[in-house]
Amino acid sequence: MACVTEVSKTKMFGGWQKVFSHQSKELKCSMNFGIYLPSKTEASKCPVVYWLSGLTCTEQNFVTKAGAQKYAAEHGLIIVAPDTSPRGCNIEGEDDSYDFGSGAGFYIDATEDKWKKNYRMYTYVTVELPALIEENFPAQPDNCSIFGHSMGGHGALVCALKNPGKYRSVSAFSPICNPCDCPWGRKAFTGYLGSNEADWKKYDATELIKSSDGPPLDILIDQGKADNFYEQKQLLPERLLEASVPSRHQVALRMQEDYDHSYFFIATFMEDHIALHAKHLNT
Amino acid sequence: MACVTEVSKTKMFGGWQKVFSHQSKELKCSMNFGIYLPSKTEASKCPVVYWLSGLTCTEQNFVTKAGAQKYAAEHGLIIVAPDTSPRGCNIEGEDDSYDFGSGAGFYIDATEDKWKKNYRMYTYVTVELPALIEENFPAQPDNCSIFGHSMGGHGALVCALKNPGKYRSVSAFSPICNPCDCPWGRKAFTGYLGSNEADWKKYDATELIKSSDGPPLDILIDQGKADNFYEQKQLLPERLLEASVPSRHQVALRMQEDYDHSYFFIATFMEDHIALHAKHLNT
Repeated sequence: MACVTEVSKTKMFGGWQKVFSHQSKELKCSMNFGIYLPSKTEASKCPVVYWLSGLTCTEQNFVTKAGAQKYAAEHGLIIVAPDTSPRGCNIEGEDDSYDFGSGAGFYIDATEDKWKKNYRMYTYVTVELPALIEENFPAQPDNCSIFGHSMGGHGALVCALKNPGKYRSVSAFSPICNPCDCPWGRKAFTGYLGSNEADWKKYDATELIKSSDGPPLDILIDQGKADNFYEQKQLLPERLLEASVPSRHQVALRMQEDYDHSYFFIATFMEDHIALHAKHLNT
Repeated sequence: MACVTEVSKTKMFGGWQKVFSHQSKELKCSMNFGIYLPSKTEASKCPVVYWLSGLTCTEQNFVTKAGAQKYAAEHGLIIVAPDTSPRGCNIEGEDDSYDFGSGAGFYIDATEDKWKKNYRMYTYVTVELPALIEENFPAQPDNCSIFGHSMGGHGALVCALKNPGKYRSVSAFSPICNPCDCPWGRKAFTGYLGSNEADWKKYDATELIKSSDGPPLDILIDQGKADNFYEQKQLLPERLLEASVPSRHQVALRMQEDYDHSYFFIATFMEDHIALHAKHLNT
């Protein structure tokens, strides 16, 4: 393990929840990620599920609150949860708002001058991080899935739809489904990609699903009906569902009565999401 | 609900995780507690399990990290998790250390002048809080159990052993088992109870188990072998086990390889503890 440094390790559900840091070539800064290694990895390589977190999160939110390790242990899955953006890049204004800059990388490769050197989270999570994981951990090569929450749900959908065949399955909790047309997405895309809205469509799941080819994806989305961001039309899951109908991909959108946008909601349905990924990865 | 104020409510595992505040008569300050109400409470009254947290904790640690709600939902149990001490009492030095004063009430009734007005956590958790819960929530009367972690494991054991028949079952994660003879306990007992060590024994599980009568208790204790506080002899579970042998009570002490003192450890074995309490409460 030449290129990763162990920050912490804690025994959990028979395996190990660890946090590592490494110097990212794509992001040109130090990055942390959480990794859960089920006990099955002591004897054999295991599939990997990538988790992308939402606005303001670090790798810690998922590690401490999602309750995923129990199910990962049961199914023999590694779960990798990276931080949500570059940190400490000394870009003017990087820490000014919760929904842009630090903690809000949006899983895209920025093209605007100010951000394009560091804000390359799309390539980080789809290329650099998987290579690092396969090199340093007992991960089965080319056998992975991806899921996430809110901004990270958007990221998971975009990563899967832009890379046909790379991810066996994809799921999301309260994802931002049509960022070109919601306040969070429009702010982030304007800042990172500029004002030409045509450039935004390559990071918008509702746009991408119309033309994404490759193996059909079995996409599970859980959305709380009492989620204030849903009510504010930041998430727009119906748009993705509608766009998916003529596509090769199948979206199962479950609207969950009374649930909000929190990790309490995520923890409640985590078992179903891990089971979906296990079904596709353990075959 | 005249005497409790809802601070938050979040849907989780089909039920509701809520936090309430109330003005405590025993502690003469405002106190928060978390309460998980499984969906079963919509139709009928349910048993209650009280959780006592460890040093530095508020009601939030258990609510966000223990992963207990899933099992409480499955077994139809209410879980109540109070804060660990009075707060904001303007007692000189109350916030000076992590292991005494705020966040460190030790679940005893203080007798030293400086603390005795507010620091009455023993009576709070065994008398005032249960009455409040039974009055305000769909709780089955006189059908409860208790468990906790570290300082709260000590608290749970002491509450059960001092009140024969009150709690159907008791369990603990890495409890302080012999506070009269460990640094944490000696500091707290000296401060709250004074220097007469004979007075300390009434809040020491290893002392209490020798003479506690009433129905035999089936006590489950999980202890991580990689717990630094175990290594520092703050916890001393072997003392309790040894003292239990001639008693009417049965201690099952499970030493868990590689596990530490954290909520990751607690979450791992939470299912077993809730199942034990459910077995005694749902009969």
